[in-house]
Amino acid sequence: MAGKRGRITIISRRRAPVGAPPGTLYTDPTVAPPPLDLLAFDSAGLDETPDATLEDVKAALDTGKTVWLDVGGVGNADYVGRIGALFGLDPLALEDVMNLHQRPKVEDFAKYTYIVVHMLAGESLVAKEQFSVFLGRNFVLTFQETPVDCLEAVRDRLRRAKGHIREAGADYLAYAIIDAIVDAYFPLIEKLGDRLEGLEDLIAADPRSHHINELHVIKRELLAAKRSLWPSREVMAALRDEDNEFISKNTRHYLRDTHDHVMQLIDIVETYRELATGLLDLYLSSLSNRMNEVMKVLTIIATIFIPLSFLAGVWGMNFSPDASPLNMPELRWAYGYPAALGLMLTVAVGLLGWFKWKRWF
Amino acid sequence: MAGKRGRITIISRRRAPVGAPPGTLYTDPTVAPPPLDLLAFDSAGLDETPDATLEDVKAALDTGKTVWLDVGGVGNADYVGRIGALFGLDPLALEDVMNLHQRPKVEDFAKYTYIVVHMLAGESLVAKEQFSVFLGRNFVLTFQETPVDCLEAVRDRLRRAKGHIREAGADYLAYAIIDAIVDAYFPLIEKLGDRLEGLEDLIAADPRSHHINELHVIKRELLAAKRSLWPSREVMAALRDEDNEFISKNTRHYLRDTHDHVMQLIDIVETYRELATGLLDLYLSSLSNRMNEVMKVLTIIATIFIPLSFLAGVWGMNFSPDASPLNMPELRWAYGYPAALGLMLTVAVGLLGWFKWKRWF
Amino acid sequence: MAGKRGRITIISRRRAPVGAPPGTLYTDPTVAPPPLDLLAFDSAGLDETPDATLEDVKAALDTGKTVWLDVGGVGNADYVGRIGALFGLDPLALEDVMNLHQRPKVEDFAKYTYIVVHMLAGESLVAKEQFSVFLGRNFVLTFQETPVDCLEAVRDRLRRAKGHIREAGADYLAYAIIDAIVDAYFPLIEKLGDRLEGLEDLIAADPRSHHINELHVIKRELLAAKRSLWPSREVMAALRDEDNEFISKNTRHYLRDTHDHVMQLIDIVETYRELATGLLDLYLSSLSNRMNEVMKVLTIIATIFIPLSFLAGVWGMNFSPDASPLNMPELRWAYGYPAALGLMLTVAVGLLGWFKWKRWF
Amino acid sequence: MAGKRGRITIISRRRAPVGAPPGTLYTDPTVAPPPLDLLAFDSAGLDETPDATLEDVKAALDTGKTVWLDVGGVGNADYVGRIGALFGLDPLALEDVMNLHQRPKVEDFAKYTYIVVHMLAGESLVAKEQFSVFLGRNFVLTFQETPVDCLEAVRDRLRRAKGHIREAGADYLAYAIIDAIVDAYFPLIEKLGDRLEGLEDLIAADPRSHHINELHVIKRELLAAKRSLWPSREVMAALRDEDNEFISKNTRHYLRDTHDHVMQLIDIVETYRELATGLLDLYLSSLSNRMNEVMKVLTIIATIFIPLSFLAGVWGMNFSPDASPLNMPELRWAYGYPAALGLMLTVAVGLLGWFKWKRWF
Amino acid sequence: MAGKRGRITIISRRRAPVGAPPGTLYTDPTVAPPPLDLLAFDSAGLDETPDATLEDVKAALDTGKTVWLDVGGVGNADYVGRIGALFGLDPLALEDVMNLHQRPKVEDFAKYTYIVVHMLAGESLVAKEQFSVFLGRNFVLTFQETPVDCLEAVRDRLRRAKGHIREAGADYLAYAIIDAIVDAYFPLIEKLGDRLEGLEDLIAADPRSHHINELHVIKRELLAAKRSLWPSREVMAALRDEDNEFISKNTRHYLRDTHDHVMQLIDIVETYRELATGLLDLYLSSLSNRMNEVMKVLTIIATIFIPLSFLAGVWGMNFSPDASPLNMPELRWAYGYPAALGLMLTVAVGLLGWFKWKRWF
Repeated sequence: MAGKRGRITIISRRRAPVGAPPGTLYTDPTVAPPPLDLLAFDSAGLDETPDATLEDVKAALDTGKTVWLDVGGVGNADYVGRIGALFGLDPLALEDVMNLHQRPKVEDFAKYTYIVVHMLAGESLVAKEQFSVFLGRNFVLTFQETPVDCLEAVRDRLRRAKGHIREAGADYLAYAIIDAIVDAYFPLIEKLGDRLEGLEDLIAADPRSHHINELHVIKRELLAAKRSLWPSREVMAALRDEDNEFISKNTRHYLRDTHDHVMQLIDIVETYRELATGLLDLYLSSLSNRMNEVMKVLTIIATIFIPLSFLAGVWGMNFSPDASPLNMPELRWAYGYPAALGLMLTVAVGLLGWFKWKRWF
Repeated sequence: MAGKRGRITIISRRRAPVGAPPGTLYTDPTVAPPPLDLLAFDSAGLDETPDATLEDVKAALDTGKTVWLDVGGVGNADYVGRIGALFGLDPLALEDVMNLHQRPKVEDFAKYTYIVVHMLAGESLVAKEQFSVFLGRNFVLTFQETPVDCLEAVRDRLRRAKGHIREAGADYLAYAIIDAIVDAYFPLIEKLGDRLEGLEDLIAADPRSHHINELHVIKRELLAAKRSLWPSREVMAALRDEDNEFISKNTRHYLRDTHDHVMQLIDIVETYRELATGLLDLYLSSLSNRMNEVMKVLTIIATIFIPLSFLAGVWGMNFSPDASPLNMPELRWAYGYPAALGLMLTVAVGLLGWFKWKRWF
Repeated sequence: MAGKRGRITIISRRRAPVGAPPGTLYTDPTVAPPPLDLLAFDSAGLDETPDATLEDVKAALDTGKTVWLDVGGVGNADYVGRIGALFGLDPLALEDVMNLHQRPKVEDFAKYTYIVVHMLAGESLVAKEQFSVFLGRNFVLTFQETPVDCLEAVRDRLRRAKGHIREAGADYLAYAIIDAIVDAYFPLIEKLGDRLEGLEDLIAADPRSHHINELHVIKRELLAAKRSLWPSREVMAALRDEDNEFISKNTRHYLRDTHDHVMQLIDIVETYRELATGLLDLYLSSLSNRMNEVMKVLTIIATIFIPLSFLAGVWGMNFSPDASPLNMPELRWAYGYPAALGLMLTVAVGLLGWFKWKRWF
Repeated sequence: MAGKRGRITIISRRRAPVGAPPGTLYTDPTVAPPPLDLLAFDSAGLDETPDATLEDVKAALDTGKTVWLDVGGVGNADYVGRIGALFGLDPLALEDVMNLHQRPKVEDFAKYTYIVVHMLAGESLVAKEQFSVFLGRNFVLTFQETPVDCLEAVRDRLRRAKGHIREAGADYLAYAIIDAIVDAYFPLIEKLGDRLEGLEDLIAADPRSHHINELHVIKRELLAAKRSLWPSREVMAALRDEDNEFISKNTRHYLRDTHDHVMQLIDIVETYRELATGLLDLYLSSLSNRMNEVMKVLTIIATIFIPLSFLAGVWGMNFSPDASPLNMPELRWAYGYPAALGLMLTVAVGLLGWFKWKRWF
Repeated sequence: MAGKRGRITIISRRRAPVGAPPGTLYTDPTVAPPPLDLLAFDSAGLDETPDATLEDVKAALDTGKTVWLDVGGVGNADYVGRIGALFGLDPLALEDVMNLHQRPKVEDFAKYTYIVVHMLAGESLVAKEQFSVFLGRNFVLTFQETPVDCLEAVRDRLRRAKGHIREAGADYLAYAIIDAIVDAYFPLIEKLGDRLEGLEDLIAADPRSHHINELHVIKRELLAAKRSLWPSREVMAALRDEDNEFISKNTRHYLRDTHDHVMQLIDIVETYRELATGLLDLYLSSLSNRMNEVMKVLTIIATIFIPLSFLAGVWGMNFSPDASPLNMPELRWAYGYPAALGLMLTVAVGLLGWFKWKRWF
């Protein structure tokens, strides 16, 4: 998703041509089929099939166990379409899975709920993957852009049967996945907060030109975070409040907690955004101050020495005292030089006194 | 729509005189009747009549097929009035069709729904046409400002019977048209995003005066896009949610998708607007920095050399050492010149040290 | 309404003393009774009585025809009170008629609806009159600040029986009046838009100090327009939606159109306000740029010549080479002058190279 | 309420200690009991008792007349508590009466309604007193910080039986009092508007440093006015709309008028705040312009003369033409001086032309 | 909570690992069990057990008295878990108690209400502790980060049976605790207000570079206060309005008062934030003014003396009058020197006049 300029763009792109019928899946034949990670479990046990085939998935679904199929890529539309057919998904929803510019959202379908969230995909808040969750009666189907994710801890909980995750069914699993994705924002935002507060100290002490570029980068990350988090709030509120038949009252209770986390993230992001704005003001004020100080030094030095240099220039003129007694008689006056120096000193002290009086230093 | 200064104005103009009765149609006799593009179809087949006459339209309406009449211009009020009469349209709605300053909106009438959207008309988000859609039980009547549009893909789907567009009736066709118009915003906004992120790199590296003009142009385009998209959101929400008898439950389902697209566009536009604001801050900060640096160089050079030049000026004065031993005896002192140079060096080094101490470089 | 400084103030003034009982009418005996313009009509015909007397009005009301009385001034409280008594108006409403600082609003009374709007009164959006409309079962009573208005087209429609205005009763007449007043905003705002977009071109090309004053005047006008239009929106929404017994369903349909026009005006004003803000940013950035450029030229010239002048000053000193071989021996060196010029050239080229390397030009 | 720095602080202070039980009244024994102003009236007549005692109040209440007791100070908690006991007031409400930092609010109690508004207390919008009104079935009890107020006109209306104030009961009296307090904002805000618009003319003509301090003071006053008016709007809406048993339908009608006045005040304050912001922009732009102009003059003068001075310096060097023909032969050239002056003129004209070409003047 | 840079960070941190099951308590074995402060009371009397054990708590709960257990630390998850088990608390709520980044909130559980507020923890509005309250039928369980708090006055009221606090049950106690925590904001915010208004005077008189750092610190504190107070408003509204079975109608009445206090705090904070923004504008304008003044002095001095120095330089050139009558004949002219001085004086006076005419001083 990194741009051609080595910078990550805030808005990702890939779209169907304008005017195409809805729900069309566009095959890119150069893309390999994504890896399928299949977990089927009930309270009795867990079967894990890494690099599963579609047949494995079909078989697992038929066992009646709760199935989590994690698809590690959406580039091969053909393959995605076949997975969709297996789970009975709507073509419009599948189009959304592959168009990587969705806002976080929830859509209710007859046989499943479709949830889109943004999963962090690196050390920056700008780098995000679109993460699609289909929550059915007894399955959770997830689509990621790449097989790398932050869900290993959830898989471990399933494997080790930690907590009541195996007993609690598909909805609790979906909650666990979404909660893990939301929680992954905290360390990055806190790291960003550290950078911001560190910058605050630097700018307060001695503003430098690279600080402002750093500040811009931080604001950009916060903007990207805001873009993911604000709609996530609505997602969480919808999942928690709505009469969603796939989510049990118990899981709803846990989703309230996730909703709280999203609210905290938004609150932190907004606070940091205000702090960043304050920091820009601080930077610009400090810069103005500094410029002012520089200008004052220049003005004081120049204003004192320019008249003095003029005087020296006058007495450096070559008008001939021989031509007339009016021509620079002071040059031959016995006290000419000391008097000239004295006059210069008087001018300098007078100007300094004037600046002092104007409180310039 | 391009202004007289070769720039496209954000707000287009053409209005009835103040105080005129509502629903009056003003004929401009110099305008030729617009081209009529007629498509009549049912699940069995499609009849296409380019450059149709009003009689063709009447005949097509009588067949009971679904009719799409696309009118390629609204300048000839007389002709627009006759089309309106044929479809039984309200004079107030027809006035809106011809007054090219409507905001996107939906209005329900007894026999049809009237929808106004903004269609992009060029390579800029500022250049837009008013696009009016009348959706009846078995017709879709569209009015454009010029015959050029982005709907060829929709016509092709009708011709090739791609998707279930022929079976699905007038409401689905209207959805397909509006969806195509909305989707046409994506490539332009993404191009704008590329320009903006490119500008970001340039400004971060080396801010130049033309960047700010470019930024202003981008902000102008985003403002124009915002102006079209915010009310479009309400249009989509109204079409999707309202108890509109002309729109089937199935089409409503697809309109939810279009609503999502408008939300994505708004989200992107707002993100870019914030980014543009951040970029202006970055630009102005960089400029201040640069000015500061320039001032410092000037101040350092001037502040060091002005006192030195003064000293040189003093010893360039022509006070006559012959007139008295007080007059510039140093000129005849054997070490006068080296001492003078030494004093100058001392002053210079002292000032440099002071600047260093003040952390000016 | 023009202020004492030859400028039109944004907020107009005239008030009853603090603590006075509500509904008191204050007579200013120096003000002449306002001209009354009386029109009485039904579908059969129209009687027009310019400069009517109160007896004429009473007679017209008794005929059962629809009566439009237009009062061309509110300065004479006594007279206004007598008109109020004739139509059975509430003292509180009459106080509002005469206190020229009302926001646009609608108030329902038992026998009539009281509507306040702002009518443009000149070539500026700041100059506005308070326009009061009392809409009863069979009368429309309007109060203006001065007899001058933009309603001649409405009167002409009544006289020529253009449209169905004569048949449609008092509520349609009130709609026609309000619609004319709203529509009169369009040409002025469009003229303002032309000024703004013209200014945009000028500022982008070459920002001048008078542009910013012009921009301030435009922003002032937009602020004044906003002040009138925002509450007008609520007025239109109230008239259109409310269970108002004086407004028929049919007229309500037309008022939706006026509501749309107000929405368009607000939309245009807000767009122009954003554009004006962007223009201020452009102006300030351009100014900073220009200042930067000026500073750079000064700095380059000064920084190059100040050291050179210092060197010339050194060799212009009068230390006597006769006094010692240490004193300025270079003055008598055969290649002294060429070497000095060469050194100066080297310094100049070196500094130019340094500036080039710093990308100052 | 004036701060120790001779400036009026925006937020006033006086509080009970943290953690104290609610409804505690703190006696400050150094404060004298406040003056009580007692009016008892019915449609038959009015009894006025200035400097009444608590016994007078008790007696008046027992007569069944409508009683207005105005307490001119809240510093003596003991005394306030006794008044509260007499009228059966809640300790929490009494605590609010004495804690002088309440926002305008309405609170309904079983036997009375408690209303807090801010009364202007001087020539500045910042100087405000907390004004508490207890409206019961047949009494109005008001608490002020000082005996000085703007209610003399209301008392006069009671004394002269002007309007139907005597007949209308306690709720109408409370309306009259609140209306007088709200109306007192108009003259001050209009005066502020005059100052602001006067400042506008001055800044547009010639921005001076003291204008910005004046502007800051005006913005401060507007901020203070906003602080009082925004919650007052809610107070008026609550009084007007709510099912308040102490306020008759008739009085509610008058309160709608007061609500309108508050809305007008808010509207004026917000308009002035925007105007003040625009003025700050105008000021800063003018200042930048002026700085730019100053810099240009300096740069033009310096850039022309610095090279010329350098040339003069070169030909003022003392290299000995006797030492070699390479040393400054031009000094002895017959046309040396005219040629030098000519070269200087060429340089000056060239630079001027360059500046002209760069449109610097 | 102080950061490693000696500055208090706005956002505090401590979190469970990403992907962990909800409700897990993480033991940090290096943390000592927190001190438990136990008060059990009914209207008859009060038993206080400082440094209580869990057995003491269990015993107190069994007496049927109202119990307030205050836990002075949340670092030892094991111990917190055991307290939770004793009171029958939900693991999710306990996780929130220990994750020190909660926003103020209310959550209703079957057997208790869980309330989070922020308690000030020092002399700065940034330093805050998370304060958790569990309100049950007959207990109040509070968790603090450190044993230090501002609740001693509440404990004293319990001990001295001041007010009806002992009779009023757990809900009133919870109110008293929360009210004390809210009221503790007032003195700090008022102190901040004093600093801000003091700064206002200083900046208006003579803006200095350290003022802007001070202003930034104040804005930071206001931001922190805003972050705690805005969600507190919702907490108070929820406690006051909701059908909460643990809060009696009477206590609800008192909570309305606390709600008012929070509203006042928000109002003050927002007013100060606007004031701080105005102050930044004032500062920057003053700085620009000052810079302008400095630049003018420099420009006037330099612009006058640079041409004069040039003239002196010209007449200091060494062109030989012997070589030709064209070479500097003025040097030998009898009135050369006075004429030169006269010319210089003319130039200086002329420039001064020009500056005067341009109103530069």
